[in-house]
Amino acid sequence: MHALIIGAAGMIGRKLTAALAREGLGGSPVARLTLADVVAPAAPAGFAGRIDPVEIDIGAEGAAARLVADRPDAIFHLAAIVSGEAEDDFDKGYRINLDGTRWLYEAVRAIGGGYRPRVVFASSIAVFGAPFPPRIGDDFFTTPRTSYGTQKAIGELLLNDYSRRGIFDGVGIRLPTICIRPGAPNKAASGFFSGILREPLVGQPAVLPVDEDVRHWHASPRAAVGFLTRAATMDTDALGHRRVLNMPGLSATVAEQIEALRRVAGDRAVALIRREPDAKIAAMVAGWAQDFAPERALSLGFRAESSFDEIIRAHIEDELGGRLEAWE
Amino acid sequence: MHALIIGAAGMIGRKLTAALAREGLGGSPVARLTLADVVAPAAPAGFAGRIDPVEIDIGAEGAAARLVADRPDAIFHLAAIVSGEAEDDFDKGYRINLDGTRWLYEAVRAIGGGYRPRVVFASSIAVFGAPFPPRIGDDFFTTPRTSYGTQKAIGELLLNDYSRRGIFDGVGIRLPTICIRPGAPNKAASGFFSGILREPLVGQPAVLPVDEDVRHWHASPRAAVGFLTRAATMDTDALGHRRVLNMPGLSATVAEQIEALRRVAGDRAVALIRREPDAKIAAMVAGWAQDFAPERALSLGFRAESSFDEIIRAHIEDELGGRLEAWE
Repeated sequence: MHALIIGAAGMIGRKLTAALAREGLGGSPVARLTLADVVAPAAPAGFAGRIDPVEIDIGAEGAAARLVADRPDAIFHLAAIVSGEAEDDFDKGYRINLDGTRWLYEAVRAIGGGYRPRVVFASSIAVFGAPFPPRIGDDFFTTPRTSYGTQKAIGELLLNDYSRRGIFDGVGIRLPTICIRPGAPNKAASGFFSGILREPLVGQPAVLPVDEDVRHWHASPRAAVGFLTRAATMDTDALGHRRVLNMPGLSATVAEQIEALRRVAGDRAVALIRREPDAKIAAMVAGWAQDFAPERALSLGFRAESSFDEIIRAHIEDELGGRLEAWE
Repeated sequence: MHALIIGAAGMIGRKLTAALAREGLGGSPVARLTLADVVAPAAPAGFAGRIDPVEIDIGAEGAAARLVADRPDAIFHLAAIVSGEAEDDFDKGYRINLDGTRWLYEAVRAIGGGYRPRVVFASSIAVFGAPFPPRIGDDFFTTPRTSYGTQKAIGELLLNDYSRRGIFDGVGIRLPTICIRPGAPNKAASGFFSGILREPLVGQPAVLPVDEDVRHWHASPRAAVGFLTRAATMDTDALGHRRVLNMPGLSATVAEQIEALRRVAGDRAVALIRREPDAKIAAMVAGWAQDFAPERALSLGFRAESSFDEIIRAHIEDELGGRLEAWE
């Protein structure tokens, strides 16, 4: 089993890399990992197989050919310019998120000769745009209100067409907002959903730019890695011609996030959240999905957390060594 | 008023050209028509304004800049590789239908300086793919089962994003299958829906490749021209962020088409239809939409025919000089 991860230096990419190195994929060991990103990804600790880190710009036509030349069995396409940056830089967003995805698919097509890898495309709930029904069903239409969401929706359409043509065996998964994102904030406009939990858990202040009644759709990094490995190993016959799935998640308001933080880490953590309304972020968030009924994905065995307490505890286990440090 | 029609040499393009030359647009005369296609379009008879026929390959990056350099007020983008050909020639379909559309939008963007034309994008019900609900609503998702439908769905997403960005003022209209198409058959797999009426009306035999219980969604060329001019002149504030509309049409089975032909042209016309089942066409048609509830478009004043008798009579008026010739 040879797995290629594009976007391997990103937060989810690193966690997926570690999981594949540690656990293999679908019960089989992974013998080889090709890890691609704009900066060469680090090798996972203690992996006995072959590692090929590749520094690459997937927005350049022809670049992806290098990545697929050795015919990886599974391709995880996680690389993207995130929502805030794609909104600020029109050309960069289209070049990486649209062209980069298309050139990857074309590189697989160019190999031919019976090569038909599993391609897992990390899409996003940003493909949806307000107004929404109370819960978004599996057949709700894609009317993104960001360029990022537009580019992801196009990647999904291409994934379906290339799969239908037999060029590869694609699965698209629409990830909820990942919460709690570890590490430093990125440029995603959704970053505060993590920040208001992550920073107070280690005694640092955090900024809340929207109202507490804002409702959103979340899953942990741990759940996201589970979605990706399941998408890579599932029987795609069950998908028919509709190869993109809304992933499970947890619908919660900011107030519910904060109350979970209070239960897990106490009032002094909550007191570190500072309200600083930001009209631009509030306007973007107002166009985002709030709740889903992801029935197809649930019936296919995809699972997420069922409470924010669980999401916070997963973060403490995975990122903070299993316990909250004492801090003033 | 300067109107640009891309795909002006096609069937709908010629009818739209004639309508703009004859009637103007939205109550205003059209002073200038730029008519673009892979073969230079013919000038309409009796038009007093300026005509610029342009022979162009819109699939070439940069080509569209020529078309928009003089800042047309309204751009009708009708050019496409049709469904059957886009299915047979993967690269050509993507080059014209996806890249061609994108380069057009980019050419408008490159002008800048407050230029913000109305762009009317002729999309198609091919953006939908089976299985369907009994009637497709305005918020049903796009899961095309052809490359053509994929390319049209991508053109819609781009139209929405470029409009949201203020680059142009776009309206996408999902045309029903156009019936009765005049003239020679094209390579569209849907061609027989027209052929089984058009040919018998002039005493010629026609082939029916599918079962008579096949149900499909139709509108006349006359209705299609009305959709385009309405899309070019409507108040787009009413569309909000969702600038693509399912057009009205008529849902009918092949048997209902044939019975309308019998009422209008008699048994001897019906007797000219020859059954020749074609598994490839039947399989494509099985994935197509059958009926819609196009409530948004109806509320915005778009109108189609309400019976196949009406569609056949429109064809006789517009294409056959208003009467059926005697033939044996």
